[in-house]
Amino acid sequence: MGQTFGIIGSGSWATALTKILTDKKQVVNWWVRNENHIRHIAERRHNPSYLSSVNFDPATIRMSPDVQTVVRESDIIVIAIPSSFIDQSIGHLTAADWEGKRVVSAVKGLLPDQDILLNYYLHQKFNLPLENYFAVLGPCHAEEVAAEKLSYLTFSGTDITMASTIASHFTIDYINTIVNHDILGVQYAAVLKNIYALGAGIAHGLEYGDNFLSVYIANAADEMAEFLRSFGAEHIVVGEHEREEDPFTHRKTPNYAASVYLGDLLVTCYSPYSRNRTFGNMIGKGYSVRTAQLEMNMVAEGYNAAKCIFNINKSVKASMTLAETVYQILWEGVNPAIGFKKIEQVMI
Amino acid sequence: MGQTFGIIGSGSWATALTKILTDKKQVVNWWVRNENHIRHIAERRHNPSYLSSVNFDPATIRMSPDVQTVVRESDIIVIAIPSSFIDQSIGHLTAADWEGKRVVSAVKGLLPDQDILLNYYLHQKFNLPLENYFAVLGPCHAEEVAAEKLSYLTFSGTDITMASTIASHFTIDYINTIVNHDILGVQYAAVLKNIYALGAGIAHGLEYGDNFLSVYIANAADEMAEFLRSFGAEHIVVGEHEREEDPFTHRKTPNYAASVYLGDLLVTCYSPYSRNRTFGNMIGKGYSVRTAQLEMNMVAEGYNAAKCIFNINKSVKASMTLAETVYQILWEGVNPAIGFKKIEQVMI
Repeated sequence: MGQTFGIIGSGSWATALTKILTDKKQVVNWWVRNENHIRHIAERRHNPSYLSSVNFDPATIRMSPDVQTVVRESDIIVIAIPSSFIDQSIGHLTAADWEGKRVVSAVKGLLPDQDILLNYYLHQKFNLPLENYFAVLGPCHAEEVAAEKLSYLTFSGTDITMASTIASHFTIDYINTIVNHDILGVQYAAVLKNIYALGAGIAHGLEYGDNFLSVYIANAADEMAEFLRSFGAEHIVVGEHEREEDPFTHRKTPNYAASVYLGDLLVTCYSPYSRNRTFGNMIGKGYSVRTAQLEMNMVAEGYNAAKCIFNINKSVKASMTLAETVYQILWEGVNPAIGFKKIEQVMI
Repeated sequence: MGQTFGIIGSGSWATALTKILTDKKQVVNWWVRNENHIRHIAERRHNPSYLSSVNFDPATIRMSPDVQTVVRESDIIVIAIPSSFIDQSIGHLTAADWEGKRVVSAVKGLLPDQDILLNYYLHQKFNLPLENYFAVLGPCHAEEVAAEKLSYLTFSGTDITMASTIASHFTIDYINTIVNHDILGVQYAAVLKNIYALGAGIAHGLEYGDNFLSVYIANAADEMAEFLRSFGAEHIVVGEHEREEDPFTHRKTPNYAASVYLGDLLVTCYSPYSRNRTFGNMIGKGYSVRTAQLEMNMVAEGYNAAKCIFNINKSVKASMTLAETVYQILWEGVNPAIGFKKIEQVMI
């Protein structure tokens, strides 16, 4: 198959991924919805709205405002739009458009309404098999990619050969790539980290200190690993894909201290600027969920994530006092201070 | 046996531990070397030099400038002085003074010259058996204890019943206690964290960003766990104390995500004020080790720790690229940028 990349999205993360590919002289088909932005990028060589310090060589980018064109003309399609815009952006395409395509999800979090990962959506809607689906994740502020600060990206997929091939297109002096075959685990880790970061915000709002926060984050790491181990052991996957031995590490259970799991949790929990942290802080200070949402004019990812994981864990049955308490605070009106009293008791 | 506590030391950590015990109305024998300080504490009810916001009830403290008196009159002796002052402070005592005493180490780091843990020193010098030795550790800035921000302390010892008893004296509304029987592991974890924090400082000095730092710390957590697992498996302990099953968790291998391991690593690596971080930052910026030491007018704990762990690991044989590279940068003149190129390659 060919290896023409298409990028769906023009936000900061999409812009960073386009920069990486084009810095390697890879020609990229780029869906930029706003035609004024297309003109601006073509003429001024940078995205006017995101990471505007990044310069593009116009010879390497073929922009189009038509998403179907970009999908049809590409072999490997990187989806990098907020999860809440997925359906309105690509929902009108057909299964034929996606036939034989490899999809790389750079989407953070769950799709709204059904609270599902992108692979489930693409499977339901376009019958995309899990074998053709990959995720790019890792602790990676787009701003640091723009500044060419060395960052690590993990490419995960059940087709480990293809995951390696895709990763190789993103390997450059400021990006190290890692390959992983735990495609569902890495995505759920990225969902979980938002719940724990929101919880860290609540703890901050409740005026716990740094000593407590480090204990909380260490226990969150442990709880995340336990969920992922239990989840993996139960093979709850669409398409009944069995967990196989990782051909690189020869481990059946992934190493949950790897950057895509623990590293991403750390960068998210310790970032004072994250939406989840800010939202949680307001909850800890006593704002209602509704008021915090109105105040922020957005929904923090950890909010829906908490409900989703709570529901999944009914069958996984991992011991998850931290994530479930965050769920109860957000969705069942449990008083944050009382919820954290319960968290205090289980931490080690 | 009786349960009279003696505190050796009057720095910030000693003052915090004295506060906890006396807040529980425990009478404490307190070795305060400086007689002016004794007078000040007796009259003004607070330590003039450290955590001066903490008020003591004079009825709960029996201060003495004579360390031998404090040791003789106490059953459980908490040693909380900088490791470099241990020998000059207690080296003149006799084995008879320590006979039957329980010792709780609140000492951070290794004793100078021999680079050994306090239990080895006490065993060599006073024949104190490992069974009578305990360590109190955890992510715990003394300032947050003074402010009564909830913190977690882990009490470790091979005599788990006694460790629980000691812990119970420190359990109060702002301190949760955990018991652990990995007495050597927890102390080596506390040594390792200083190496990794120093390395985090070097990375910062080399201008790596937050993405990289989170990957580095996650990999440090993994490397620490691997060292401790290998170390535990090899039973390299004075007194040939075998690793037993933990009576609480029923695990032979401790949970390395617990606060005393991962939590303490996080708080140390993420604290921008730590000496190790500051020292490492200077090394990363190009200062020589000697200049950095002169500039700081002190030795960061991670400096000797790096050599000690390098030597121990000759027999443990864990894969420790991060800690060993920090060692090579500090002790073998390896250029920090070149050292970190090696670290970049092994991280996952």
